[in-house]
Amino acid sequence: MAYKDEKLHEEKVFKDPVHRYVHVRDRVIWDLIGTKEFQRLRRIKQLGTSNLTFHGAEHSRFNHSLGVYEIVRRILINFADRSNWNKEERLLCLCAALLHDLGHGPFSHSFEKVFKLDHEDYTKAIILGDTEVNQVLLRVGPEFPQKVADVINKTYKDKLVVSLISSQIDADRMDYLQRDAYFTGVSYGHFDMERILRVMRPYEDQVVIKESGMHAVEDYIMSRYQMYWQVYFHPVTRSAEVILTKILHRVKALYEDGYTFKMEPTHFISFFEEKVSLDDYIRLDEAVVYYYFQMWAEEDDLLLRDLAYRFINRKLFKYVEFNPNLQMKEWMELYQLFNKIGLDPDYYLVVDSSSDLPYDFYRPGEEEERLPIHLLLPNRELRELSRQSDIVEAISGKKRTDHKLYYPRDVILQLSDDRPEKKRIFEILYQSE
Amino acid sequence: MAYKDEKLHEEKVFKDPVHRYVHVRDRVIWDLIGTKEFQRLRRIKQLGTSNLTFHGAEHSRFNHSLGVYEIVRRILINFADRSNWNKEERLLCLCAALLHDLGHGPFSHSFEKVFKLDHEDYTKAIILGDTEVNQVLLRVGPEFPQKVADVINKTYKDKLVVSLISSQIDADRMDYLQRDAYFTGVSYGHFDMERILRVMRPYEDQVVIKESGMHAVEDYIMSRYQMYWQVYFHPVTRSAEVILTKILHRVKALYEDGYTFKMEPTHFISFFEEKVSLDDYIRLDEAVVYYYFQMWAEEDDLLLRDLAYRFINRKLFKYVEFNPNLQMKEWMELYQLFNKIGLDPDYYLVVDSSSDLPYDFYRPGEEEERLPIHLLLPNRELRELSRQSDIVEAISGKKRTDHKLYYPRDVILQLSDDRPEKKRIFEILYQSE
Amino acid sequence: MAYKDEKLHEEKVFKDPVHRYVHVRDRVIWDLIGTKEFQRLRRIKQLGTSNLTFHGAEHSRFNHSLGVYEIVRRILINFADRSNWNKEERLLCLCAALLHDLGHGPFSHSFEKVFKLDHEDYTKAIILGDTEVNQVLLRVGPEFPQKVADVINKTYKDKLVVSLISSQIDADRMDYLQRDAYFTGVSYGHFDMERILRVMRPYEDQVVIKESGMHAVEDYIMSRYQMYWQVYFHPVTRSAEVILTKILHRVKALYEDGYTFKMEPTHFISFFEEKVSLDDYIRLDEAVVYYYFQMWAEEDDLLLRDLAYRFINRKLFKYVEFNPNLQMKEWMELYQLFNKIGLDPDYYLVVDSSSDLPYDFYRPGEEEERLPIHLLLPNRELRELSRQSDIVEAISGKKRTDHKLYYPRDVILQLSDDRPEKKRIFEILYQSE
Amino acid sequence: MAYKDEKLHEEKVFKDPVHRYVHVRDRVIWDLIGTKEFQRLRRIKQLGTSNLTFHGAEHSRFNHSLGVYEIVRRILINFADRSNWNKEERLLCLCAALLHDLGHGPFSHSFEKVFKLDHEDYTKAIILGDTEVNQVLLRVGPEFPQKVADVINKTYKDKLVVSLISSQIDADRMDYLQRDAYFTGVSYGHFDMERILRVMRPYEDQVVIKESGMHAVEDYIMSRYQMYWQVYFHPVTRSAEVILTKILHRVKALYEDGYTFKMEPTHFISFFEEKVSLDDYIRLDEAVVYYYFQMWAEEDDLLLRDLAYRFINRKLFKYVEFNPNLQMKEWMELYQLFNKIGLDPDYYLVVDSSSDLPYDFYRPGEEEERLPIHLLLPNRELRELSRQSDIVEAISGKKRTDHKLYYPRDVILQLSDDRPEKKRIFEILYQSE
Repeated sequence: MAYKDEKLHEEKVFKDPVHRYVHVRDRVIWDLIGTKEFQRLRRIKQLGTSNLTFHGAEHSRFNHSLGVYEIVRRILINFADRSNWNKEERLLCLCAALLHDLGHGPFSHSFEKVFKLDHEDYTKAIILGDTEVNQVLLRVGPEFPQKVADVINKTYKDKLVVSLISSQIDADRMDYLQRDAYFTGVSYGHFDMERILRVMRPYEDQVVIKESGMHAVEDYIMSRYQMYWQVYFHPVTRSAEVILTKILHRVKALYEDGYTFKMEPTHFISFFEEKVSLDDYIRLDEAVVYYYFQMWAEEDDLLLRDLAYRFINRKLFKYVEFNPNLQMKEWMELYQLFNKIGLDPDYYLVVDSSSDLPYDFYRPGEEEERLPIHLLLPNRELRELSRQSDIVEAISGKKRTDHKLYYPRDVILQLSDDRPEKKRIFEILYQSE
Repeated sequence: MAYKDEKLHEEKVFKDPVHRYVHVRDRVIWDLIGTKEFQRLRRIKQLGTSNLTFHGAEHSRFNHSLGVYEIVRRILINFADRSNWNKEERLLCLCAALLHDLGHGPFSHSFEKVFKLDHEDYTKAIILGDTEVNQVLLRVGPEFPQKVADVINKTYKDKLVVSLISSQIDADRMDYLQRDAYFTGVSYGHFDMERILRVMRPYEDQVVIKESGMHAVEDYIMSRYQMYWQVYFHPVTRSAEVILTKILHRVKALYEDGYTFKMEPTHFISFFEEKVSLDDYIRLDEAVVYYYFQMWAEEDDLLLRDLAYRFINRKLFKYVEFNPNLQMKEWMELYQLFNKIGLDPDYYLVVDSSSDLPYDFYRPGEEEERLPIHLLLPNRELRELSRQSDIVEAISGKKRTDHKLYYPRDVILQLSDDRPEKKRIFEILYQSE
Repeated sequence: MAYKDEKLHEEKVFKDPVHRYVHVRDRVIWDLIGTKEFQRLRRIKQLGTSNLTFHGAEHSRFNHSLGVYEIVRRILINFADRSNWNKEERLLCLCAALLHDLGHGPFSHSFEKVFKLDHEDYTKAIILGDTEVNQVLLRVGPEFPQKVADVINKTYKDKLVVSLISSQIDADRMDYLQRDAYFTGVSYGHFDMERILRVMRPYEDQVVIKESGMHAVEDYIMSRYQMYWQVYFHPVTRSAEVILTKILHRVKALYEDGYTFKMEPTHFISFFEEKVSLDDYIRLDEAVVYYYFQMWAEEDDLLLRDLAYRFINRKLFKYVEFNPNLQMKEWMELYQLFNKIGLDPDYYLVVDSSSDLPYDFYRPGEEEERLPIHLLLPNRELRELSRQSDIVEAISGKKRTDHKLYYPRDVILQLSDDRPEKKRIFEILYQSE
Repeated sequence: MAYKDEKLHEEKVFKDPVHRYVHVRDRVIWDLIGTKEFQRLRRIKQLGTSNLTFHGAEHSRFNHSLGVYEIVRRILINFADRSNWNKEERLLCLCAALLHDLGHGPFSHSFEKVFKLDHEDYTKAIILGDTEVNQVLLRVGPEFPQKVADVINKTYKDKLVVSLISSQIDADRMDYLQRDAYFTGVSYGHFDMERILRVMRPYEDQVVIKESGMHAVEDYIMSRYQMYWQVYFHPVTRSAEVILTKILHRVKALYEDGYTFKMEPTHFISFFEEKVSLDDYIRLDEAVVYYYFQMWAEEDDLLLRDLAYRFINRKLFKYVEFNPNLQMKEWMELYQLFNKIGLDPDYYLVVDSSSDLPYDFYRPGEEEERLPIHLLLPNRELRELSRQSDIVEAISGKKRTDHKLYYPRDVILQLSDDRPEKKRIFEILYQSE
């Protein structure tokens, strides 16, 4: 039997708290899960620094990747007999679902920003490079790795396949909303996925939703909205991320200045030099990062030492609402005050902004444009969701942005009350609230 | 106001997936949570290698410690107005609950076995030594750290206090059963804790259970039984633990032989020499262990390299039922066969045994003797649980033991079919099943 | 000890699927639950005809009333030590919560419409009349029954007390949303009540919400919105209600025409004559209604017989979207067509309209005006919810209305295809969709 | 297309709180659900008087019947491709599952005892008689109704089919344990049904369980044990059942004595005379029973009046532990004392006994003998469950019996303290506890 059609002698299941069980019957999927590149995802948390806010959020990307695979598997059972669906794409969809986050490193967001990386490039590189994953995919067919990479990259010709993995209501989002809600324990994040799966229909080049399922989709969109603002953009999580980013900046600056580290930062050097090989990238998991952070908390450089110590021991920055565009003068004054009291403002006075678009009818030409969700009416016509749903219309296209200013309140508080800077700093910060 | 009575200006809560919310109002508790020794528990998984079997089981000891604290807090609300209860012990109970696992290191079970450590000693050492935790406790009173250590050590004079933290139905067990069930996703581990808390009564030197709550306790005991055999003693988890233990053995042996490591195992040296200082102990979190394992997977020593590679990439040993006491002859033959094919049987042929006593009426003189559970009858007399409950009587005192033999099936399979050892090894292994 | 302060020797609990346990410690509450007027609520379904759509929705008003009591009990534990809260009102609040729905009869909505009743009048009448409930309340104090009635009637002087029971975020709504979601099994209806209770604050004449709890309130409002449209206004439920209403109309008309019933409708006569005594009202529970409906399904009057048969055996009307205001001509044509085919359009061609306002900032002068929800800002000022929440603003004050036309499709289908009326009726109905 | 193969144009679903959704695609099933005999199950509670103890337990047999159907449907999806399974039996299994409780009347247990009925006879009668259900089944084939009746009656030739519906681990039990747990809200009743379904295998003349699923089955058996003692045999529920039974006895006795009822008990006469036709039986739903009970609470006969009043208004009997076999003398004394104080002991002094066998390895020759559960070992042999599971062995075959004595404590309490009978009665009752 061809490898691509090979079934396990007996179905394997993974006990999953979110989907009850993840079922694997294809040999290819089983083999992919066993590769070291996929196992590496166990050592990378799905939510980066969120566990410092929600202590339950310690789950890994391995966890989530299996979940996305399982959702796609269930969708395809429903699609199996539909005329619009090409059964030949089944294994491709499953592999793309399983591997879509393969290139994530630890704390991707911060690492990508500081070292100018893109995890999507590494996903592609792992799939196409000299890896165990690539070897498994090659056994399916010589062009199969490229196809998987194309689906994840959204360049695959069959857009219907792409839309299962990346759209405004794809398996990726449906898994992470439920999973992150489960592990954080928040009560948002519930929606009736079983119903959504049942009303999904393959339709030309996209997955659409039967109109009767509109309310389940509304619920999903509200869920997403709440999860973004309550969990993903939680200000305490962002505080940890701010510190993390500053550690990376500092350590890079020190390297560039020729600073002598107590322990050579071997794993990081190619990152500093922005020439990261696939091997270097794969070796840098979360354990390695934590190991270095622990080392750096004992470095001689006081700035690096303080920041690393803060991150490891969760001595985070506090925050106030602050929009530097509107509060230019205050910003400049604070900047100078921080310099005066010996706190480098480039590291200790940090504005972080988050923004999200809960649902988008259409954003042509924008960077991350995603197709809107379409409802399938009884007459077989399509209608864009926000034209049918009052609630979605109400929030659609409305970008919400939140600016916060992070700073080490503990340090300011320890200043002598005699120092006028102390009083002035708090004046500016508190009036801004 | 005395520090011990100080309340936070506003109650703080932690969102907890198991208990919904963990509530903190005491300044002392809040300060303890903020210490670096307590924050370190975030970097140690509650269930060691279980996440290699149940991918959801990635939660930390930090997570569990908050849970135990919360349960004790709720018990004490119910106790507050009872005549048998000494309100002065409240803060002591809460601190002991929060800190009871403070001395756990990564993969405690294996580390303790190989390096002859005891995490309870380190819990005590952290509480009494020169640590942030000690400083917080000292502010309550000069003898307070010792009291907390005594409660955790079960030597505190008021045994009622001790029994909240360590008994056959204590806050520790009630938290971990529910928490581990939640994160693994198994359907065992449910019992009606709210009811158990409501029927708990302080009674002389122990916590007892009103008779009307007997069935909830039965359910808890069955839960515990199932969790032990379905989760904690899962053979795949034990396979990972077997490998982990062998890595530690190997690396210690290499060190003792004067082997030159590519990277000096600085963090481990005091472990090899069995002179582990408090500082050394605290620095060794799970990230550090993973970091070294990654390094060791590239060492020259083929044995260490193979074992570390297996652990990191989850290429585990397979297992068969095997009781070396009953199968002495087979065991000796296998041992020789492994030597013949070049697999050191001390590392690659490992028997692991698990055993558990689901409930114990009384085990006088035994090492870990725990008081039986007592029911409080309407006439105010006590009756030991197994004398009242048919189900508990049926399983009580019955120790169940399970022996498994672990070995690298992949290696044996790759042997040439010509080699008679291959055939013979499988013959012995399979007939033993 | 005064009756009002009397505590049960031991707390009683009711196992409740929604709130886990309902706790009763006050003798007064215990006695009220035991009255026959309160027990009668067991024989009246909370959701009337909804169980014909959602088969799980068979729970009674007894069920819900205990739930509202429990929520108020929990709120008051949080209020107990707050300066704005008058502890003397505790028992009053609990009684009002428990008894707020006491005057509900079976299928209230339809009965009230046809027989021009108001369940709130009967709640008052039961509390103040010669009943077991009244006797219990009188033992608290001579003016206590009137006070309880006033709170439920929203005329009580202390509006803070009133707002616990009736506001846009009161214990009544919080219970029924969760309870109805639980019993129907829908995935809407979840919100973090524990958090809402924790951020509720007594503030002058209303209960307000600490700003930090805004998102939990948003979630509650979205929940409410979804429950209304997905559950309460479900078109199949309304079909059953339409038939029920028509049965009552028919039977009343027959009575007024001097029709001779096979079995005298004793329980209904005072309803027909619109002189319903308290006793008559109380006797008419859901079992009695079903008993008569079963009888009427065997009456000689074909219309009554058919409608009763349909209700009992769930042979419901079908529906199409239809707005008679916009489709006046079609409506008139249908009316005549129905007459022609011998279906009395007053009974068999029924428009039903539902409308809801998901949240209302302020509706001065309107019939059912309810205070908006106010957030309590850190500076102790209040801000109306929709001014702070984007989502609530988006849906606030937007009344949504839905019109449906109900008719017996089975009858039309059975007409001979030769009849031009058949074809024309379906033409009109289907084009309107 | 043959009726038996006809599929609905579009799958219909019922929202179910226990199984999420119940799916119907077969026209036959859809038509059966629509029959009036099946709809009648909506008017009969699944748990009779349990809602007087657990207020959530108001769910109907309609509810449960859909659930059993759904479980069988899911089992058959797993069986579909197995060689031991005859696909032709699929529709038969589904119909038998759906209809297995069709003959239940209100409060079956009491009615069957007093009027010497057997609901299984009526199930058969409805399936084979002149009913809507029969008409639907006949359309499948002339022998189909008989086959369905045979499966339910356990006389069908293919015992594998029978064992899906009636065995020690059948769809009936799996549904009611979970459903009754859900609606009562108790924490017992959870087990991993999804896993059990996955390890079920058709094997010759029975359904067996793959050995790897043994622990899930253990959990199910413990669940069942707890549900019996915590819910089904709850002493308060039994108190209501005792009263109910006595009402039926009394009313029958009055009828036989020629008593003149205020309202002729038309619906009951054939019951009194033990000549109940199918029509009479079907008409007697729970609403009718409640209607009469309300009437009887106003009868002249004081005994009937009191009992009916107690049932309607939940003024139940209290109870003590009492075994008349062991306490013969006390029993006789109580009997005489009750007579002395004017309480007819045949109605007011009632012993009720419950007993259950949690799991049975084999009870040859007994009335309700059910096959034991068999595990399927890897070598394809079978082993009876209790020989493999320690826990099941511990409880298997152990019948537990509980005797309680019910009496109207309120009446005894109201006796004057001067009466020696009062004191003596309480002496006997309390010492027996």
